[in-house]
Amino acid sequence: MDSYHHILHVFMTVVIASVIYLYLEASQKLTELENALSEKNRSIEHGVREAVSTEERQNYVDTLLLEGSSVWCVGGTHTERLCHFKNLCYSPHHERFVFFHSKHSLIDGATQEGPALLDMSAVEDHNTQYFNYDDFPVAAAGQFNISVIEEHCLIMNRFKPDNLMHIFHDDLLPLYHTLRTISHFNMAAMERIRLVFMEGRDAGEFQYIYDKITNHKPLLKMDFQNSLQDNLVCFQAATVGISKQTTWYQYGFKEPQGPLPHVEINALEITQFTAFMKRRLGISDGPLSEKIIEKQTYGADSDKTSSEEQYIKQSDQQNIIVIFSRKQNRLILNEVELSLSLAEKFNMQVISVSMETHTLSEMIVVVSRAKIAVGIHGSLLILSMFLPPQSVLVELFPFAINPDNYTPYKTLANLKGMKITYKAWRNTYINNTVTHPDYPEDLGGIWHLSKEKQQEILTSSEVAPHLCCSDPEWLFRIYQDTVVDVPVIVELIKTSLEAHGAVENIDDLNEDRILPAQVEKLACLPFEESTNGKAGLWLSWQPPWNIQFFDPREIEYEVWIQEKGSEDYAAYKMKKRSHQFRDKIKPQTMYYIWVRCIFDHTKVGPMNSAVVSCQTTG
Amino acid sequence: MDSYHHILHVFMTVVIASVIYLYLEASQKLTELENALSEKNRSIEHGVREAVSTEERQNYVDTLLLEGSSVWCVGGTHTERLCHFKNLCYSPHHERFVFFHSKHSLIDGATQEGPALLDMSAVEDHNTQYFNYDDFPVAAAGQFNISVIEEHCLIMNRFKPDNLMHIFHDDLLPLYHTLRTISHFNMAAMERIRLVFMEGRDAGEFQYIYDKITNHKPLLKMDFQNSLQDNLVCFQAATVGISKQTTWYQYGFKEPQGPLPHVEINALEITQFTAFMKRRLGISDGPLSEKIIEKQTYGADSDKTSSEEQYIKQSDQQNIIVIFSRKQNRLILNEVELSLSLAEKFNMQVISVSMETHTLSEMIVVVSRAKIAVGIHGSLLILSMFLPPQSVLVELFPFAINPDNYTPYKTLANLKGMKITYKAWRNTYINNTVTHPDYPEDLGGIWHLSKEKQQEILTSSEVAPHLCCSDPEWLFRIYQDTVVDVPVIVELIKTSLEAHGAVENIDDLNEDRILPAQVEKLACLPFEESTNGKAGLWLSWQPPWNIQFFDPREIEYEVWIQEKGSEDYAAYKMKKRSHQFRDKIKPQTMYYIWVRCIFDHTKVGPMNSAVVSCQTTG
Repeated sequence: MDSYHHILHVFMTVVIASVIYLYLEASQKLTELENALSEKNRSIEHGVREAVSTEERQNYVDTLLLEGSSVWCVGGTHTERLCHFKNLCYSPHHERFVFFHSKHSLIDGATQEGPALLDMSAVEDHNTQYFNYDDFPVAAAGQFNISVIEEHCLIMNRFKPDNLMHIFHDDLLPLYHTLRTISHFNMAAMERIRLVFMEGRDAGEFQYIYDKITNHKPLLKMDFQNSLQDNLVCFQAATVGISKQTTWYQYGFKEPQGPLPHVEINALEITQFTAFMKRRLGISDGPLSEKIIEKQTYGADSDKTSSEEQYIKQSDQQNIIVIFSRKQNRLILNEVELSLSLAEKFNMQVISVSMETHTLSEMIVVVSRAKIAVGIHGSLLILSMFLPPQSVLVELFPFAINPDNYTPYKTLANLKGMKITYKAWRNTYINNTVTHPDYPEDLGGIWHLSKEKQQEILTSSEVAPHLCCSDPEWLFRIYQDTVVDVPVIVELIKTSLEAHGAVENIDDLNEDRILPAQVEKLACLPFEESTNGKAGLWLSWQPPWNIQFFDPREIEYEVWIQEKGSEDYAAYKMKKRSHQFRDKIKPQTMYYIWVRCIFDHTKVGPMNSAVVSCQTTG
Repeated sequence: MDSYHHILHVFMTVVIASVIYLYLEASQKLTELENALSEKNRSIEHGVREAVSTEERQNYVDTLLLEGSSVWCVGGTHTERLCHFKNLCYSPHHERFVFFHSKHSLIDGATQEGPALLDMSAVEDHNTQYFNYDDFPVAAAGQFNISVIEEHCLIMNRFKPDNLMHIFHDDLLPLYHTLRTISHFNMAAMERIRLVFMEGRDAGEFQYIYDKITNHKPLLKMDFQNSLQDNLVCFQAATVGISKQTTWYQYGFKEPQGPLPHVEINALEITQFTAFMKRRLGISDGPLSEKIIEKQTYGADSDKTSSEEQYIKQSDQQNIIVIFSRKQNRLILNEVELSLSLAEKFNMQVISVSMETHTLSEMIVVVSRAKIAVGIHGSLLILSMFLPPQSVLVELFPFAINPDNYTPYKTLANLKGMKITYKAWRNTYINNTVTHPDYPEDLGGIWHLSKEKQQEILTSSEVAPHLCCSDPEWLFRIYQDTVVDVPVIVELIKTSLEAHGAVENIDDLNEDRILPAQVEKLACLPFEESTNGKAGLWLSWQPPWNIQFFDPREIEYEVWIQEKGSEDYAAYKMKKRSHQFRDKIKPQTMYYIWVRCIFDHTKVGPMNSAVVSCQTTG
């Protein structure tokens, strides 16, 4: 029996595993508590049975026995990989995917270096979300009772399908991006794909959103669970995995939560996604329905004396203020005062939306027309992605919570081109907070902690940065109710509205991607000084051909002169387009010449792609 | 004017640029010389004009002005990236691609960190093959005279389309792989894609091969060159770039030539590709035609006394020996003797194929049926990929060339599952070589070198490792003619044929990918020794569920026991499936347990994906 040690990476994986496990356990408990009242019984639907064409099953098994499984993947590592499978099977009993190896099995781009072939959720390198398959010889297929799913399936894990923030950030946006990419932007092909969610959760109260993404009802892991031990479900054509290109936030599993290091998504992709979701949810851009307005509406129209016509005119002008309201906990204690005050100060209709009073579609309708949105930190704020340009989002934070440490919605509002002015407000008066030390511990109660620890939490004025997911001080503080400072919030909004003129134009979305092209007609003429016989190079070039369509404030050129065979080169910056170089130029020497154009000091064009060489005389 | 220095990487790029430039220049000259006699005039075809639907052009321009260009890419770096474009344009006058930025322009996954957005050829990070586009505001589109290409195009560079080795290794196999991937293995979709070759070479003598890949005639860069200065060609839907996943060899630009570090391609992918090529070239697997046999055939059937029937029987048995023959240079001086001897010793038909006597299709027909292939190092040997399993390839090398340093065909023959026995033979007798110091320098002449350098080359007995592409000693030696040692070659083949029984079975192609699954029913029970009250953990598990279908010689398990919160863990290896652990186990402590299965010491299965934890008492 040997005892030995492995490298740090393996160990870290192990540590993170336990943290993540705790998080998922904790967050599931939390959800159960939060939804305790509103939860309904849901009948589990057995989509598999519908999807299988029983009469063709035997034909399929014959084909499977001949072909086995195949896989071809795109992406260099497990965190960026998507794999496409032919004949990928799944054992509900063992809860494992099965790859049948035959002599026709293609395995292409599926080299596994990391802990998994790929991540099944959009949350990076999250080891409860790893995908791997088990290996079987194809002959073993004959031992199973096989069902077939014929449509092209996209198989992935929802990360936390009971929380709107996670639904949009980790599931819907990544799904849209993935579906679009694998169907080459062909909307019809995209809508024919069937989604398969394997994280093991039930459909959940947001099932109807997931149902709308494509034309097929998604399958859940539990849809396969009515199977016997030797049953296998085989996907004739499956893509496994999901894109991470649209995500912008990490939840604090390895370091305190915050924006991801490389955020690629911008307003255009958000807009394309929100338009897609609105279309799939059947939300038109017409006027607000009476039904929505009747709910929780304050201000000019709430007394119902104004005519319908006047209302429509107002909503067309997007003169709506939306309040993201929570009804169970983390309350704005003076929400009515806030609403009335906002309605009065800005002469707009204030609509307070909440999970308890509006459907998701209704909330989207309202947010899409809002000029101003206000809400206490929480998952509803993810709907800010539906805010129109030139709007204002004010996020409210309870006492002792530093807004800089919790920025999923700030990051969203500040994505390139969003043109949403984001402001955070933080309660700094302890008298304006109501704490709940007696709550269940998952909702911030601290009764179960030692007296010392309780005292420490109660006297702290700011929650220190922490990892996910069950820091008691964080939970205690985030579940406080707050009396918000209405005049300060009004002032924040006013300043933001006034500053809107200075916001960048939507046409500039890709502006920093627009660079000068290569220089034109780069030429080199060697010369010899008539006075002293010294060698020189006379370089000249023309501006990039795209310069005429831009209006740079300053145009510069950078010149590199490299002696053939030397590892060194001289670099120069200049504004003119021709120059005689004498410094360090040797006679009878071959030089390579590289020139590039720079707009406004920061927009650096490419070097000439064709080598220009020049041989001095003398 | 500032002078300053940049990082090493940038500089290396510059250095490699000049090396590569020299190579392409040299190899182009070489080709011109080699093909001087056989070259024909070719009419340049203007595919663009056919492809453009003129009546729809105005509609297209209107759409372009509205939408601009969009790009979405897959792959993390420029060397592994493929990009898909909507409305990618090309200026023939400026020889540059154009991206029209509009407020609808999507730029997704196209973050450029390296020197280029992507490589246009399958040769990695080759800076004459870089793809970039120039930026324009969409309003500028109105200034151009725009032609449209409506089909989905795959735009790339052929690397060296006049050399069979390069054609297959750098173009055809990568093209097949790329087309297959972007069309999700849908053959009909794949064949509808139009290829566009932008390296700037003319169609070349192998045009008919490229023409067969899809149902459209490929477009060449020169097809766009009849355009005026303000003409633009716009591709409505284009994929740019080409997969490198099938390549196995690098040509010595940065280090001496040799196999690539990570070769992924295997016999199955080669077989799928060769089947595809044969189908597209109209090559059936029936008997050899009389026409092919009549050419350069030696041995039993060459005297034409045997009946046609007998011949077919023989060819069905693949009793053919193929000689890859060169007619212009690098000759086997005793090729007839070699042929007759092989025919006699192995009682097989010997067919000598060459570029001068056979079409490519004819050569493929012959090679596909050959049991034995012999040839001097050169591009024809790439056709070895068409050799059937259980065949033998003998590559002959002229005097002073070390076979270990030039292994593109050895690597090919040894790809996993190819089951071709590869042998190199090297001429070690200076009397059996005929040198050509008087040849043009690109064909190995050394007359232009100093006397000392000439002497050095003439007296060296082995060419030292060198970079590509114009090492005079290498060229001098590789262009020697050789009298080959027939008895030694016969013996090499004999031994290889005899050893065939030991070659791995084709079914084992993916054998080292077949690993144990996770262990089943992993359980942990804490206990306390009744004698001394010491804590312990009783672990047990069941074998992986796929074990019943495999036949490992040895099954071991590896156990990790990690204390919660500790960075350390203890690891154990054992053959049994349950064990009581006492060593270092503390009371009242939480432990995490990980177990994995190992077949035959090398096939390591995954750890349990679900955390198993265990709290000791005491």
